[in-house]
Parts: sequence; C-alpha cells; structure tokens
Amino acid sequence: MLNDLKILDTTLRDGEQTPGVLITSNEKLRIASKLDELGVDVIEAGSAITSKDEQKSIKTITENKLNAEICSFARPMKIDIDTALDCDVDSIHLVIPSSDLHIDYKLRKTREQVEEMAVNATEYAKSHGLIVELSTEDATRTGMDDLKHLYNQCIEVGADRLCACDTVGILTPERSYEFYKELAQLPQPLSVHCHNDFGLAVANTLAALNAGAQQAHVTINGLGERAGNASCEELVMAIESLYNIKTGIKTELFYEISQLVERISGVTLQSNKAIVGSNAFAHESGIHADGVLKKSETYEPIKPETVGHRRRFILGKHVGKHVIHEKIKETNTQVTDDELNRIFERVKSLSDMGKTVTDVDLQAITDDILNIDMEDSLVLQEYTTVSGNKVTPTASVKVNINNSERIEAGVGVGPVDAAIEAIRKTIKDTADITLEEYHVDAITGGTDALIDVLVKLKYNDKVITARSTEPDIIMASVEAYLKGVNKILTDEKRR
Amino acid sequence: MLNDLKILDTTLRDGEQTPGVLITSNEKLRIASKLDELGVDVIEAGSAITSKDEQKSIKTITENKLNAEICSFARPMKIDIDTALDCDVDSIHLVIPSSDLHIDYKLRKTREQVEEMAVNATEYAKSHGLIVELSTEDATRTGMDDLKHLYNQCIEVGADRLCACDTVGILTPERSYEFYKELAQLPQPLSVHCHNDFGLAVANTLAALNAGAQQAHVTINGLGERAGNASCEELVMAIESLYNIKTGIKTELFYEISQLVERISGVTLQSNKAIVGSNAFAHESGIHADGVLKKSETYEPIKPETVGHRRRFILGKHVGKHVIHEKIKETNTQVTDDELNRIFERVKSLSDMGKTVTDVDLQAITDDILNIDMEDSLVLQEYTTVSGNKVTPTASVKVNINNSERIEAGVGVGPVDAAIEAIRKTIKDTADITLEEYHVDAITGGTDALIDVLVKLKYNDKVITARSTEPDIIMASVEAYLKGVNKILTDEKRR
Repeated sequence: MLNDLKILDTTLRDGEQTPGVLITSNEKLRIASKLDELGVDVIEAGSAITSKDEQKSIKTITENKLNAEICSFARPMKIDIDTALDCDVDSIHLVIPSSDLHIDYKLRKTREQVEEMAVNATEYAKSHGLIVELSTEDATRTGMDDLKHLYNQCIEVGADRLCACDTVGILTPERSYEFYKELAQLPQPLSVHCHNDFGLAVANTLAALNAGAQQAHVTINGLGERAGNASCEELVMAIESLYNIKTGIKTELFYEISQLVERISGVTLQSNKAIVGSNAFAHESGIHADGVLKKSETYEPIKPETVGHRRRFILGKHVGKHVIHEKIKETNTQVTDDELNRIFERVKSLSDMGKTVTDVDLQAITDDILNIDMEDSLVLQEYTTVSGNKVTPTASVKVNINNSERIEAGVGVGPVDAAIEAIRKTIKDTADITLEEYHVDAITGGTDALIDVLVKLKYNDKVITARSTEPDIIMASVEAYLKGVNKILTDEKRR
Repeated sequence: MLNDLKILDTTLRDGEQTPGVLITSNEKLRIASKLDELGVDVIEAGSAITSKDEQKSIKTITENKLNAEICSFARPMKIDIDTALDCDVDSIHLVIPSSDLHIDYKLRKTREQVEEMAVNATEYAKSHGLIVELSTEDATRTGMDDLKHLYNQCIEVGADRLCACDTVGILTPERSYEFYKELAQLPQPLSVHCHNDFGLAVANTLAALNAGAQQAHVTINGLGERAGNASCEELVMAIESLYNIKTGIKTELFYEISQLVERISGVTLQSNKAIVGSNAFAHESGIHADGVLKKSETYEPIKPETVGHRRRFILGKHVGKHVIHEKIKETNTQVTDDELNRIFERVKSLSDMGKTVTDVDLQAITDDILNIDMEDSLVLQEYTTVSGNKVTPTASVKVNINNSERIEAGVGVGPVDAAIEAIRKTIKDTADITLEEYHVDAITGGTDALIDVLVKLKYNDKVITARSTEPDIIMASVEAYLKGVNKILTDEKRR
C-alpha cells in the first residue's frame, strides 16, 4: 500500500475553518499556487456556498489553471452544488452526515431522508459534469452497514470517490486500520480524513493508507477545526522517510509553504511543531549539539534541507563547549582551552539566571574573558518619544557615534517606528544596516508585562540577532536595535 | 495491556531541554508540585550534573516530599550519579547510547567499553540505594541482540527498570509494537520514550503500551528537543477516552498545568494543540457550532470540563445564525427572524473583509440594524504619551464621560501602561472595571506592522473582550480598552 497515494489538501477549507482564521481571496490564490507547486493532487479550495467572497476566491483559483484538481466542499443541497458549479471547480467534496448522532440531533431527519438527499445530490452533480467525492461525516461513529448502504447507493448513481471522516478524531491506529480496510473493499477509491483531537491524526491516516485507502486529506501545519486535521508535512515525511516510499511531493518546499500559511492564517506554530517548527532542527543540549556537529544523523532523523528548513544551535543552559567554540570561531577570535572553559562557565551561569544567551551576550562574555575592550561604537545618550491620537508619533535621539555626538528626530506610524527611524538616521553615514525583522513575542498578562523584542539586522551578507527585554516596548525596541548595530560595528573592527 | 500503566513525566528534564527554554528553581518546584497533584508516578526533575543551579532545583523538589518518585537523568559516569545522590533523588534515568552511530561517532568508544560503563554505573548506583531505570539512547537504531545483551548484563547487577528511547522519532506504530513487544519479554518492567519528529510520538507510545511496555515517558504540552516528546495530556486522554481505561490521572487538571508550563517555558501553544490548545474546544463554522449547541457530542469527542478546559464560540466567516442568536440573547436583546438574518449577513460581510468579529462588533451591528442609538458613555477626546530613557513614562487623557469632561494623567512602566492608568482614573468613579488580561499577538515584520491588541475586562461577574488593530501599539491598546469599557457601560444601560 502507500504507493500511488494521492493527496487532497484542505488547508483552504478545513484549515480556514480554524476558529479565528480568515484567508482573503488573494491570499487563497497564493496558497493554492504554492500547493500546486508542492505537487498535491487535489486542492479543496473552500466551500462555495459560504459567501460571495468565498465564490470569488474559488473562481480566482480555478481561473488560474493549476495542475491540481480544484474541489469545493458541498452539502447535499442543490444550492451548494450550483454555487460550486458557478466557480468552475473540477470536483465537489460532498459531505453527508452519517451517524445517528448527527442525523438525529443536528439534521433532525431520518436516515432514509439523508440517503435520498445524498443520492439526489450525487446524481445532480454528476449530471453537471462534476467529479464527486462522496464523504460521510462522523463516519467513525456510524454503523458499517449503514455506511456501506449509503456508499453503494451513491456509487450506483456515479460517485467517483468515497471518503470517510473521523470527524471528532476518535480513531486509534488499530481501529483506523480495521475501519478503512473494510471500506476499501468497496468498488471506488477511498479517502481518509482524520482529525487530531487526541494527537493521532497522522498515525490514523497512515494506518488507513496501509489498509488500502488511496487518498489522504491533509492541511498544512495541521490547521483545522478544534485540534486540526492531519498535517500534510508530517504525513508526507513519515511516508517518505519511515516507509521509504516516494510521494511525488516536492518536500523541500514544506518549510516555505508552512511559513506562508502561518503568516496568512495567523496561527503561530508551536516551536516544537514537527518538521516545520522553529525548533524542529534546533539543538541546545551539549550532548545533542556535540553529536550533531560530529555527525548530524545522531540527533536528526532527516536533514533539514530535505524540507527546506535549517539547523540552529541555541546557547542555553544545556549548551556544550563545542557549540560555543564554533560560534566564537565565526567572529575570527582565537581562544585557548582554558579561556573556552571560562567562557563556557559564564554562559552557563547566565543561562542559570533565566536568560537566553544571544550572539551579543556571547560576544560580551568572550571579550571580557579575553580582556578585549571593544567599546560600543554607538552609545545612546537620550531618547524621547511623544505620541497620541492628535500628535504625529515623533522621537528624538541623542547618540555618540565613535565619540562624536549626533542628534536626530524621526516620525513613524507609532512611537517605536519613530524611535527606530531616528536612530537609523544617526547611523546612516556610518553603515548601511537594514532592519530585516522586528519580532515581539506574544504579550499576555497586564500592561506591565515584560516584553521581549528580537531584531534581526542585515549588514552586507551578514545577519545578526539581538534581543532586549523591558516592560516598555519602546525601550526594549531601541535597546535591541542598538545592541545589534553595535555588534555589527565591532565585528567590522575585528576584521 | 494499558492497565496499571505508570507515567514518568520528564517536562522538567526533556521538556526543559527544549531549545531556548529555561526553568528556574522556584518554577521547577511549582511544576513538580502540580505534576504530583496530577498524579504522575515518576517526575524526572532534571539532570543533576548540568549545573549547581540544577542541583539546587532538584534538591528543592526532593525536600518537598511529594508522592511521586523523583528521578534525575544521568550518564553512565560516577560524577553524574554522585551529583544525583547529593540531590537525594529516589532514582536515576541512566542513559546509555546504544546504536553504532552514537557509539562510534558521538562517544568514539567500542561497544564493549560502553557496556562496561553501563554495568559499572548500574552497580555503583544500586550500591548507593538508587532505583535504576536503565535506558538505551537511539535504541530504535540498535540491533535487537545488542540491546538485549546490554539490558541482561545490567539486570544482572540490579537494574530495576528498562527503557528504550526512540531518540530521533523514527518509529511507526507498527514498528513500535514489534520492537517493544520483543523487549517486553525481558524480566524487568519496560518504559517507552518517544520523540515526535514525524508527529507520531503519542501513537508510537500507545503501540508500545499495547505491546507490553508498562511505563510511558511524557512531557506536558509535548515539550522536548526538536519536535518534542510524547504529550502527557494527549496520551492520557487517548487511553481514558479511546481505550476506556482509567489511568488514575486527575485529567481535569490538564488545562491548568498546560497553561502553567506554557507560561513558565515560554513555548506558546499552537491554538490547535490537541486537548489543551485555545481552539481545542472552539467552534466557528455554522455547521459545527449549530451541532454543538444542539448536542455537544456531535463535534466534541470529550467534554471540555474533563480536561479543565472550556468551550468557545468564535464569530468568524463561517459563523452560523444560531451562535449569533445565542450571543445577542445574552445582552437581553430581542430580534426577529428578519433582523437576525440581516445581522447575520453583516457579520459575514465583516468577516469577509478579513476581520475577526468581537463582542463589540456584534453589538454595533445589532444596534444599527435595530436602530438602537446607544451613545458611547466614554468618548476619547485626546491622549498624549511621553516616554524615553530619561523620562518617567507619562500619559494624559481627556475624555467625556456621560457628557462631562474629565482630564487625568498617569504614569507606568511604559507608555501603554501609563495611558491605561490615566483612562482607568477617569472612569474609577463610574464603574469598577478591572483589566483581566492584556494580549498582543506576536508581532513579526517591521516596526510598522499592524498590531492587534485584545483586552479582557471584568465588571462584576461579566467578562468582555474587545480588540483594536493599529500600527501604533499605544493607540491600539487605548482603543481596545475604551471599546471594552463602553460595551460594559452600555450593557448596564440595557438592563
């Protein structure tokens, strides 16, 4: 099994149903194009009946003539199919509630009525040239005989593919295998659609594919209602790496598409999200980092490049000497074993105090141990910001650059933007440094919570990160920016 | 199987090795106490050799005489065991690299040397009264004969429990079952330790337990190196809900302990994290919300209270009329079917424009449709903030409250804090409203990125959320706070 697998990606339908997520028409097209490039077989682009705007989104995608089959979700109702037809989709994912629970409580109909709706909808869609993937909702809480009866009736009137949804994620891998094995006996190809309420969506999908299902429903980053759907990147990488079966998916695009979906959906990935999380290939502990430096396979199941990701070493409490040594060598600095030991101890004790150690911190420790006195090139004397609802956000700064005083003022969309603009003006004759990224972790608590600002600055081809933590977001931003600029300027002096 | 299961929680060791995570001594004690209350059998509290501070952390925990067995990680070295002994732990998790890859490249020793180290360390630990859980690292890439040979030698000198680690997360549920079934034949109890590199850690752990392993290694929120370890809450709830086996774990504490670990570790949960994510029991789509309102089982596999969580309905693009009607009724407002339809259309079109619809938005739409002209009680005339590195952050505000003008000034740790303080002063005679939560989503991009501020205000027993999005964080905060206050004040007038 698992060969000739097809992938139906439903990031734009199930994924967009993630509470709070909204993807605009243009954004949907960007994601669909990237999914097409990734190589998925079917893109479920939305549910046409949802709104006029949704119809516009789907139509924009169908007009773009992608390779993938474009599909719309539909209930077994004429209006749902008609709006899907208006969008020129290739297929519909026709979803029929099949459990007693859904039929009795949600639809308040009889099973016979629901079956009739399903058959009529299938007939109607087929007579209008659509590919029909007939899907049963809450299938895993439906009697097998009832399921088969429904499928068989719809196959008779032309259903092209079948799908069974584990709507509330209650399968285990063993039960998934048995369940889909039984359904795979039916004459049309079978899809598996799993939810992740118990963290088992990918495992249950794999079990179904092993049992004979031929198509998997997935979403990028595992987006979806509640705990989400089976994650595309986890499923595909498991098949490729653990079963050694090629899926035809361009896996090296996974990190990029994951980032795109994260930005557009606003659903921030947990750092330890498998395959695509920021920590998926990050190493902190001495044992692990040492192992990876010697041979990456010791602590990495696949190479990060396979999924377009990259390896990172983090300077934290569990850091080992090897990683510190690597980082110091990068700045053209030589240290003896004894010096390295002392630097190592200082990094560890800084971590023990609850701080993450940045490039800037390591530099400061190293300089101190080596008695290198690299004065900061840029010293902040003073900054002031004014803002309000009737005031253009304005900032002034007074700095010393290489011992000469410089005063500048700037405006911006807010006081942070104004302050950074003012500082940028003070250094613009000294170095052409661009702010590549400005990141503030989510702030939760009170308005006096500590705020952690991380900036990524670019100078020529080099990227430097610096961080500052303050209860005042403006001060944290100014400090982080200044630290980064100083690191760049002193690195230049070391060359 | 799965009965008499024991849980070893390693949030404080494997979890703390999450790159960038650091948990201080006091925080470790808080988490350990909560894990004890949760009912885990063993708490792996850290690795004593890591640092003096780590030893202090572990010792603080052992001094607190919890019910759980307290364990330290140790390499097969005398110094690791001695430092663990100094911390008065009950047991050590003695980890021996066992694959050729780890022995050749990481340790650069022979298999015989490593076996000798393992036997000596086991003997030494046993002679000092420790319980020894002998663990093989990278076991799943080690020959079965080599593994058994190592285990048998260590059992002879007293190893109490055995553990096999899937260090880089390469098992599938089928392979996990076969692998742990073979090892479960050994005379001592067996632990399973899975990593989540392909999203399969929980499924692989379940398979191992079904195969005869008696103890599972887990972490809260699935923290750990790279993609993390098997998640405690997912594993336990799968066993309780999908296998109907009681674990003895107080599952109703899961949400609370998850939140505690999230706050302390700084690893923000993905909203769709299973069991404990903010969306785990959230519903947006009309079909789902309607189903849940009629009978929660339609779209919830377990009741949120089972894990101490709560249900939420989100007003988004896929919202249905039922949820909107429920929300309107909560404010003592009656609407006709026609009015409800018009409100519904407006909510949908607002969502289509890319906005999440808050309580305040729904109110504004409803008032407009019903021609209710509830003037805002609190109208902002003017606010100004000043801050800098040599200035106490200060804000002034001028507002109209119920048509009388009021001016106040406030200071704070930063300009946002100062501005909110100033507004709070203007309303303190009108209503006793407290800011329960202030939340800013992670900001990534430039310093001119749009910032989304969400506030949760409490008045008597009622909690109101309001949101504002601006590029200026101070303005967004002021606006969100004012919107929330006005919603509370107008709700009062409606009574």
